[in-house]
Amino acid sequence: MSTENQIVIFETTGFPNPARIRAALAEKNALQDVSFVEVDVMNLEHRTSAFYAMNPLGTVPVLKTPEGEFISESTAITEYIDAYFEGASLTGRSPLERGIVHMMQRRAESLVMDAVGTYFHHATDGLGPSIETYQCSEWGQHQKQRAVSGFEYFNRLLANRPFVAGEQFSMADITLFYGLAFADFAKLSIPPALAHLIAWRERMSTRPCFSQQ
Amino acid sequence: MSTENQIVIFETTGFPNPARIRAALAEKNALQDVSFVEVDVMNLEHRTSAFYAMNPLGTVPVLKTPEGEFISESTAITEYIDAYFEGASLTGRSPLERGIVHMMQRRAESLVMDAVGTYFHHATDGLGPSIETYQCSEWGQHQKQRAVSGFEYFNRLLANRPFVAGEQFSMADITLFYGLAFADFAKLSIPPALAHLIAWRERMSTRPCFSQQ
Ligand SMILES: N[C@@H](CCC(=O)N[C@@H](CS)C(=O)NCC(=O)O)C(=O)O
Ligand SMILES: N[C@@H](CCC(=O)N[C@@H](CS)C(=O)NCC(=O)O)C(=O)O
Repeated sequence: MSTENQIVIFETTGFPNPARIRAALAEKNALQDVSFVEVDVMNLEHRTSAFYAMNPLGTVPVLKTPEGEFISESTAITEYIDAYFEGASLTGRSPLERGIVHMMQRRAESLVMDAVGTYFHHATDGLGPSIETYQCSEWGQHQKQRAVSGFEYFNRLLANRPFVAGEQFSMADITLFYGLAFADFAKLSIPPALAHLIAWRERMSTRPCFSQQ
Repeated sequence: MSTENQIVIFETTGFPNPARIRAALAEKNALQDVSFVEVDVMNLEHRTSAFYAMNPLGTVPVLKTPEGEFISESTAITEYIDAYFEGASLTGRSPLERGIVHMMQRRAESLVMDAVGTYFHHATDGLGPSIETYQCSEWGQHQKQRAVSGFEYFNRLLANRPFVAGEQFSMADITLFYGLAFADFAKLSIPPALAHLIAWRERMSTRPCFSQQ
């Protein structure tokens, strides 16, 4: 099976950032229109020169476009997918929608996904000594506090709106959803008092893009 | 002068992230179409409940839309401005352009702007003890190394292209330009061997959006 002239996604099964891309593709009904290549992060395949040529930052996911360009960073990949495929917008259409979606996307990354990731990689054993070659545990603990304040922020926000960016589902819901999945994996529990966040998560978990990957 | 039904930008003169918004507005020929409100960061105005109501993360810049919504995060504000005003695109038009611009925007933030900022706020005196209430100097030093590797990355990239995202000026040029300005301010010097990065910066510095703010 040739993958030429097709979109290819380089991903690692079970990892939260690649999962964001599968969810975005599922929302666009486009999972069948791309092919997937597994990157063996646990055996450091993402730190080979072949991988760095695709993404100098050495992270998954990476998207290869039909013309052979490589796009990394989950937000950038989602922008590409959203513009490339038909269907409901994940990134907003009006100036106001675009502004709010991108603001919430960044907050979901910096307050949850990335804060949890820094906690996990720096203040716990993370993925083990061959991958965690530098750890700063004090900073990891600080980011754990940031993640908890992130949970509280999104709980307040979701008291008054169905989705992270307002009335419409968007990429920010995807980012928060997998940020919380990463928190589970890192054994960072969501306080039971955060009822709005927990109710949102339960609603999301039945959405096909999350439940049928 | 009423600012109702007008876009308002909350900014702090001389700070790098607010400067990105002025440059975006200048590229869109829209500096005259918005009003500006100064936020006194040095006297902690960004940590008052009035400011947190606009941006719970307590950072400038913030944009207030004509309908009274608040948008923070410089990338989100730039998305709003780019979609709201006519003129050459700062965020890309085709799927491929959008993907590449957002990827480069994120790299310019994480490898330069934010890395320099973390070094400055954590491993130096930063803005002084009343503002730097928590510092993790080890992490700040680590981010200094990340910034230096960011300079090297963009130097390699700019060996073969006129602008950060390719053939067209974009928001990623703005972010890198003010990231380097922040590096100057933080006394993090750009190694003279990085000739492509330095040449790009010299070309950029004569561009009206940067030279006529
Ligand atoms: N900012 C990146 C983060 C990507 C990321 O951190 N991916 C993780 C997997 S979820 C990874 O590649 N980790 C391997 C490593 O950092 O060594 C994005 O948005 O895609
Ligand atoms: N990610 C934010 C960063 C904004 C930011 O850090 N702004 C600085 C000024 S350049 C600030 O408000 N600093 C005050 C503080 O952090 O206390 C953005 O893109 O706008």
